[in-house]
Amino acid sequence: MEKIHSTGSEPQKEVSGAAQASGERAAEKPHAATSLLSSITYPSDLRKLPEEQLPQLCREIRECIISNLSVNPGHFASSMGAVEITVALHYVFDTPDDRIVWDVGHQAYAHKILTGRREKFSTLRKLGGLSGFPNPLESEYDTFISGHASNSISAALGMAIADLNTPGHENRKTVAVVGDASISGGLAFEGLNNAANNPNNLLIILNDNDMSIDDNVGALHRYMTEMTTSAGYNRWRHKLYQFFRRIGLVNEKRRGMLLRLNNSLKAFISAHQNIFEGLNIRYFGPFDGHDVLKIVKVLREIKNMEGPRILHLRTLKGKGFEQAEKDPTTWHAPGKFDPETGERIKKPGDGVLNWQEVFGRTLVELAEADGRVCGVTAAMPSGTSMNLMLHAYPRRTFDVGISEGHAVTFAGGLASAGKRPFVAIYSSFLQRAYDNIIHDVCIQGLPVCFCIDRAGVVGEDGVTHHGMFDPAYLRCIPGLTIGVPSDEAALRDMMYTYLQMSSPMAIRYPRGKAFTSEWKTPMREIKPGVSRPVVENPEARIAVLTMGPIVEEAKTAAKELADKGVKVEIHDMLWLKPLDTGLLERLAPRIDTFITVEDASATGGLGSAVSEWCANRNDAPRVVTLGAPDSWVAHGTPAELKRICGYDAAGIVKAALEAKPKDEK
Amino acid sequence: MEKIHSTGSEPQKEVSGAAQASGERAAEKPHAATSLLSSITYPSDLRKLPEEQLPQLCREIRECIISNLSVNPGHFASSMGAVEITVALHYVFDTPDDRIVWDVGHQAYAHKILTGRREKFSTLRKLGGLSGFPNPLESEYDTFISGHASNSISAALGMAIADLNTPGHENRKTVAVVGDASISGGLAFEGLNNAANNPNNLLIILNDNDMSIDDNVGALHRYMTEMTTSAGYNRWRHKLYQFFRRIGLVNEKRRGMLLRLNNSLKAFISAHQNIFEGLNIRYFGPFDGHDVLKIVKVLREIKNMEGPRILHLRTLKGKGFEQAEKDPTTWHAPGKFDPETGERIKKPGDGVLNWQEVFGRTLVELAEADGRVCGVTAAMPSGTSMNLMLHAYPRRTFDVGISEGHAVTFAGGLASAGKRPFVAIYSSFLQRAYDNIIHDVCIQGLPVCFCIDRAGVVGEDGVTHHGMFDPAYLRCIPGLTIGVPSDEAALRDMMYTYLQMSSPMAIRYPRGKAFTSEWKTPMREIKPGVSRPVVENPEARIAVLTMGPIVEEAKTAAKELADKGVKVEIHDMLWLKPLDTGLLERLAPRIDTFITVEDASATGGLGSAVSEWCANRNDAPRVVTLGAPDSWVAHGTPAELKRICGYDAAGIVKAALEAKPKDEK
Repeated sequence: MEKIHSTGSEPQKEVSGAAQASGERAAEKPHAATSLLSSITYPSDLRKLPEEQLPQLCREIRECIISNLSVNPGHFASSMGAVEITVALHYVFDTPDDRIVWDVGHQAYAHKILTGRREKFSTLRKLGGLSGFPNPLESEYDTFISGHASNSISAALGMAIADLNTPGHENRKTVAVVGDASISGGLAFEGLNNAANNPNNLLIILNDNDMSIDDNVGALHRYMTEMTTSAGYNRWRHKLYQFFRRIGLVNEKRRGMLLRLNNSLKAFISAHQNIFEGLNIRYFGPFDGHDVLKIVKVLREIKNMEGPRILHLRTLKGKGFEQAEKDPTTWHAPGKFDPETGERIKKPGDGVLNWQEVFGRTLVELAEADGRVCGVTAAMPSGTSMNLMLHAYPRRTFDVGISEGHAVTFAGGLASAGKRPFVAIYSSFLQRAYDNIIHDVCIQGLPVCFCIDRAGVVGEDGVTHHGMFDPAYLRCIPGLTIGVPSDEAALRDMMYTYLQMSSPMAIRYPRGKAFTSEWKTPMREIKPGVSRPVVENPEARIAVLTMGPIVEEAKTAAKELADKGVKVEIHDMLWLKPLDTGLLERLAPRIDTFITVEDASATGGLGSAVSEWCANRNDAPRVVTLGAPDSWVAHGTPAELKRICGYDAAGIVKAALEAKPKDEK
Repeated sequence: MEKIHSTGSEPQKEVSGAAQASGERAAEKPHAATSLLSSITYPSDLRKLPEEQLPQLCREIRECIISNLSVNPGHFASSMGAVEITVALHYVFDTPDDRIVWDVGHQAYAHKILTGRREKFSTLRKLGGLSGFPNPLESEYDTFISGHASNSISAALGMAIADLNTPGHENRKTVAVVGDASISGGLAFEGLNNAANNPNNLLIILNDNDMSIDDNVGALHRYMTEMTTSAGYNRWRHKLYQFFRRIGLVNEKRRGMLLRLNNSLKAFISAHQNIFEGLNIRYFGPFDGHDVLKIVKVLREIKNMEGPRILHLRTLKGKGFEQAEKDPTTWHAPGKFDPETGERIKKPGDGVLNWQEVFGRTLVELAEADGRVCGVTAAMPSGTSMNLMLHAYPRRTFDVGISEGHAVTFAGGLASAGKRPFVAIYSSFLQRAYDNIIHDVCIQGLPVCFCIDRAGVVGEDGVTHHGMFDPAYLRCIPGLTIGVPSDEAALRDMMYTYLQMSSPMAIRYPRGKAFTSEWKTPMREIKPGVSRPVVENPEARIAVLTMGPIVEEAKTAAKELADKGVKVEIHDMLWLKPLDTGLLERLAPRIDTFITVEDASATGGLGSAVSEWCANRNDAPRVVTLGAPDSWVAHGTPAELKRICGYDAAGIVKAALEAKPKDEK
């Protein structure tokens, strides 16, 4: 395999040499100039550094992250916690021939900085800039995409097994780096359960920072927390292993015996047993994940071992930045901040809430009045504002950790026992619970309310996080009502309406600000399948049919079109399913063109529903479907992305100007 | 809660009494008349039997299952293995107030027989008859749907927690019965990981028969197999626990200490540690799952304990029928058989293969020629015919157990390292890997081939197993090619074509027989997005556009329509994505009506794709969309279901006769 860094490494050698000379001195000064880092373009440069300079390099990487993220916001705390792991991995392994698979890529900023992307790091998460997550399309050092948690073990296992079965690739190493929150996902467990099934030399690094974005939950989490209490034992066992290996006692045949001895010893000195070795994965740790020299040492020791192994490293989320260490939830993605004082730079509030906050506050309001109301989320209590409910009604609110499938099936269980669960999950993550929605809720018609957060483009998180597909994947499910509120009042009314029904409902709403500080409207039951007129004009030959807050773009477009003498109607459909076919029926005779607008894939959603209705009629208007095209949408601001996808006001204007009379072919 | 069996229990009392008197005598004769069983309509009747009659009742239930299934095929081996568990549960627990949640309901035939459905048991899996799986719409004893594995723990946990928080329901018990294969699914792990998170008294029964449909795989499986070696220890520990409880030593406070003592002891005498207790779930077992009296005893002992518990029972799949015990894979669903000799009644072969066999043989053929070819399946090697590949190329074939998500992400890993994995999973189960398809394969454009088995109605397995949604949930994914072969040659050509491409492909094909014994056609590369004409007629004003082998129904319809003087064209679209819009373009000027026909939901698939194309044109034909309606499709034969859904030949004829000229409104 040709390495993209083979050219250009020559001139850096000198810089690297200079850095080396100043290494020890620099190590004493935490805020020294970033002389080491500037010498490193690719990991091959890193590998030329003497070991003792690595701590200094880690400090410099942290400074680089701090200075960049203070002005260009991103995922801060996770990457700060993974600096030493990153440096040690690229130092010990021969990347990109050896593969590092990051689980939830927002821990991978140091990896980006060390793999040819330091100069572009200031473009992170911007339109046309670096992705916030590893992406193989961006760099050959990014071995797999990693926007959704828990996939690294399965993917890396595939690579490790493939290499072992590919002539010439047998010695390539594969390392999966997985967080302690990610490893609690069912997919990670499935990966672990299969890791010992076929011959492979996969190394799993458990980056255990005792956190998901919010506090981590679940038995496995507790288990791992308590496992550190047995560090003494593990150190002892590691020495024993090294001793046995030195004297040639350790081989595959005798491994069982050794494990057995280990386990008896461990059970004596600790309250816990080792789940991983129960799954036939050799376990090492826990070690300090911020002691880069120690990690390098351990990695060298276990690098060439055969069979699947797990190395447990304890890290601190936000390491190296005091405020982040203290409050890693806030500092998961803190926005802009002052790199010196650590003060977060907030825009002054205008009283307008996020959709999330309106959802969270409304949920608490409903829970006050109705004892059946429960809340469920999957590791996103603050992101979804489910934390408001968690605070108000802790016994009726369930954060199940990174396990979207369980969240939905568990809600099905709650509903079957008479509760009314609101399950708040991001649209793209809800893809993980698709079968649960169908099989465990909708076939039975159980009254669960899916509150689909981050529906539509999410902006800077990019391709893995956009919520583009939920209209398509949900619309085919019988018996599921799908509401798409266009403002706070509609969201509240839909949540209230769900409680009056006895069947499942989905409500999709976007990330970010809603519209008004007067959000606390009285809630009322509304009828699914009834749209609401926004602009009516009996002379209009064009009707814009919108779904969700994107109606605002249509209003802007209507004004612009009026200036051009083009009359349009606007109807806020409110419900994707049932569709307001009565409205279509009324409009069909006088309208030439329906322009459907949705913040979602143009395939399968509102545009398809309206097209299906029209396609079986001769007098029906033409349908122009605006939404995300049949290609992947990258990162950028939501406004930029809507413009590029053609469903902002300008896109609507364009579609209206191009619309033809009904009889024109 | 009112129980549906409260009426009618009076007359049964006498019968029950008579049976009781003859109980011991009957117990000596294994093939005695089914006198005990006939006395039992509901579990309340069962609970009147003296304990010593339970073994005889179990024998009678087995006879009932054998005699019924020998003439009316169904899932045999699993239910035979769960008879004692079922009897003991209904005997000890106050069902339906207490809830039993079955995981993979085909173990639940004894449950159906004991809960008011013995008389209807001969209608099992037939149109209008009993469902093959528990279904809450069928009986209040069926607490949750259970066609897809691994959901019981999550659902039951929801119920258990809901009850604990509902005044008057605090003492209701919830029991999840999960197989050892099901517990390896990620969803089950997520359930276990959350089981100790909130106060609840969930009891999990692990029905460990050492099998999935095929041989079970995975580390957890191995772990459990080896756990039985420690039966001596567990028996001892159970006695210790009873002793401690008697003398009042056991309480929640001291539980930790006791577990610790236990674990040390266990680690000494067995090679393994207890994963479940590592997850803070109290573990009991393993016990003999066919010793009904023992199970009753243990259940009584642990029934009222607080906190989540797991009871591990070892069972034999097919227990009580020699042939099934010897070959449980064949006897998972053996078809008709002779209840005396155990001989399976097979129809004489006509040389026509199943779609599955064509797939399996073709895969081996491709693997012979191309070293990159791999096979992946999730616990369905025989169902998908992946076993042919497994046999021919064991190192290139991966059965990952019940873990569809892992199967797909793992395949993504294989593909990213240069392999060409064919992933064979049933359509309805692939719903579980939806996010993996999007995130771990398609965003990266990795060349994975999804071989979507059981696409369309599957027949007798019913609502949970029909593969109705894959066209809708896949069509919105950018960059995914979707092929729908109408015959064996097309299937083979598509598989071959995938190997010439470098992007993901999905190929959907149904359950059951293909068409010809001459299936081994030479394979050739075909162009995605190009349909093939089946019947062309320049005078036709109707074009039937089909997807998959349902084209045969269109051919039948065309003949019938010709007799009535109605001319139609037929086009086999072959590809759902890309759609052959060139064909539509050519046909549009002269065709009045497109009739789309697909063995799938009419929402989101071919009908929607054609409607979307037509809806933005004035001269386009009308579109009549035939496919499954927007409601749940029950069980019956595939022919019956297609008729009911209106997409058989008769449905096509009807649609063609109703079609109107283009200019008629």
